[in-house]
Amino acid sequence: MTDSITPLDDIAFSFQDRLAQVLRDGRHRSRAASTQYRQLWESLTRMATGGKLIRPRLLMDAHRGLGGRDERAAVDAACAMQLLHIALVIHDDVIDNDTIRRGEANISGEFAAEAVLRGAARREAQAWGDATALLGGDLMLTLAHSLLARLDVDDAKRRAILDIFDDTLFESAAGEHSDVWLSLHLEEARSQDVLAMAGQKTAVYSFQAPLLIAAVLAGADTGLIDELTVIARQIGVIYQLRDDVLGLFGDERTIGKSTISDLREGKETLLIAFARSDPSWVAVRSLFGDRMLSTADGHRLRQVIEESGALVFVESIISDRCDDLYRLIREAALPTALSNQLIELTSECNSRTA
Amino acid sequence: MTDSITPLDDIAFSFQDRLAQVLRDGRHRSRAASTQYRQLWESLTRMATGGKLIRPRLLMDAHRGLGGRDERAAVDAACAMQLLHIALVIHDDVIDNDTIRRGEANISGEFAAEAVLRGAARREAQAWGDATALLGGDLMLTLAHSLLARLDVDDAKRRAILDIFDDTLFESAAGEHSDVWLSLHLEEARSQDVLAMAGQKTAVYSFQAPLLIAAVLAGADTGLIDELTVIARQIGVIYQLRDDVLGLFGDERTIGKSTISDLREGKETLLIAFARSDPSWVAVRSLFGDRMLSTADGHRLRQVIEESGALVFVESIISDRCDDLYRLIREAALPTALSNQLIELTSECNSRTA
Repeated sequence: MTDSITPLDDIAFSFQDRLAQVLRDGRHRSRAASTQYRQLWESLTRMATGGKLIRPRLLMDAHRGLGGRDERAAVDAACAMQLLHIALVIHDDVIDNDTIRRGEANISGEFAAEAVLRGAARREAQAWGDATALLGGDLMLTLAHSLLARLDVDDAKRRAILDIFDDTLFESAAGEHSDVWLSLHLEEARSQDVLAMAGQKTAVYSFQAPLLIAAVLAGADTGLIDELTVIARQIGVIYQLRDDVLGLFGDERTIGKSTISDLREGKETLLIAFARSDPSWVAVRSLFGDRMLSTADGHRLRQVIEESGALVFVESIISDRCDDLYRLIREAALPTALSNQLIELTSECNSRTA
Repeated sequence: MTDSITPLDDIAFSFQDRLAQVLRDGRHRSRAASTQYRQLWESLTRMATGGKLIRPRLLMDAHRGLGGRDERAAVDAACAMQLLHIALVIHDDVIDNDTIRRGEANISGEFAAEAVLRGAARREAQAWGDATALLGGDLMLTLAHSLLARLDVDDAKRRAILDIFDDTLFESAAGEHSDVWLSLHLEEARSQDVLAMAGQKTAVYSFQAPLLIAAVLAGADTGLIDELTVIARQIGVIYQLRDDVLGLFGDERTIGKSTISDLREGKETLLIAFARSDPSWVAVRSLFGDRMLSTADGHRLRQVIEESGALVFVESIISDRCDDLYRLIREAALPTALSNQLIELTSECNSRTA
């Protein structure tokens, strides 16, 4: 295997060009439909082309790091990963009844607000916003699949990539389903269930799918693909654990949401699973998952969680898992460039503040 | 072109086998996930394997009628059409907040009811039901696309079929989006918008997609494909107009839902567009789209609609369109078997009672 082919900026440029092009096609076609449908495509374009582009960058970097030479296919697959991410994020917001993401109105919030301005009742406007978002997610999911189904690679590779995509959707839906189920609190959430859910819901689509698709495109062998699968899962768990910590203890302006919202939602995390085993939990447990939770009670609940030792515990888990993962990456039979990228990615997942 | 290859029953049998197999794969894989996810796959299987199977039968009949010989591909494409139908129906129910379909609890209703039995609050249980249905729709959409992406046909055919699928999803989402928008009543719904919406929402995926995919598989030329496109659209409009009439004036036991529900929802149809232009509408217009509409007021509203002449008008439109369509089908350069099938299908769409 050889290292590096084209400078990063050139590839990022062509990725963003391609993504813009794919979305422009949709926008152009939507001109024949209603004003509202055109507006949905505008919103989808803004969402899909913004953000940190973690998943497409990972796919393209890994593809090059593994000596892959099919830049065109890698760019299309990277676009598909970004579109899948957007689809899942949009449907996740519908499921959670969220109208704000990263401090701004999401699709549901945007369309509902406009309908209210035009005279719709709040309840009907919200249903309209949710319907728009649900359909937007369907469109992004279809576009992602569509790019992969048309990849100009040999049949075996295309089928392997389609398999990865299908598995990814299957696992992500299972993870999301578990997440909602655990939030109902009809049964005790065990730490292993919470960790498995986080792996399914986030790790598979954010890290495993981009890495494995890159490996297939680069012609990696089965042994390497197995190693990358384990590594991707571990990166994903670290990413999710950091997400849970930030959700409760992060800076609200940086993370772009209230640090009370996960508590109102009753989101089951490793922090909660730990805090629940502390005697102090009994006094506050009715607050957890209370949709009407006040800011003051939210702070009290958070303090109980912190004083139970949950934060220190989860930070130590994250730290141990990072150490294990660095070792795993170094010991795997990876090209140096990819190895360095994965170590950097792990470190970013751990140290990020948003 | 030759007529008929295998007796209908044999093909229907292999279609149902294949559909069952595809869903069984999902169920088997779901065993590794949560109890709830397994249950979702059970419900999806029941939904997908039941019903009238109009779309897959149309695809397989048309494929044979056009002299196609690739039964395996036709069966897979027919499965994809059925799964797409299920995905759209499920997401439509989520959008409409429906918990009952054809007299039985749908996925949302089933999961919500069970959560209530296990002690969940009604609101949280409903959110859980909706989340389950939304994810179920995503799974069925992915499975449909997945079957088409793997069709064992030459590249050009597969890409043409993928194009049809993508167009179908694009149009169906546009139609659904319009439907919800028109139900907000923020602007006057014109008859042509209502008809265009019905065409997009139902005709494209129910009739156009199965017919065009069958034509591509059978190697039909562009002229024939264009003729089939026009015919499919017209069948779809008749289907939808009959649906609207049944929704208001059908037999509740046969159609499996209340004849008040479309009025409560404020569903814009050609019946409503006509009734709105009658002076009698002013006295009842506040009832239309009232979520709390009583049965008595519902009957009154329906009576005003009927007495405005809307029912007679729409029945005459249906009748004229059927006549036009029979002529169109007879004049098209179609094999006799297919021509007869399409005439029969048109007649069924017109005369159905459920």
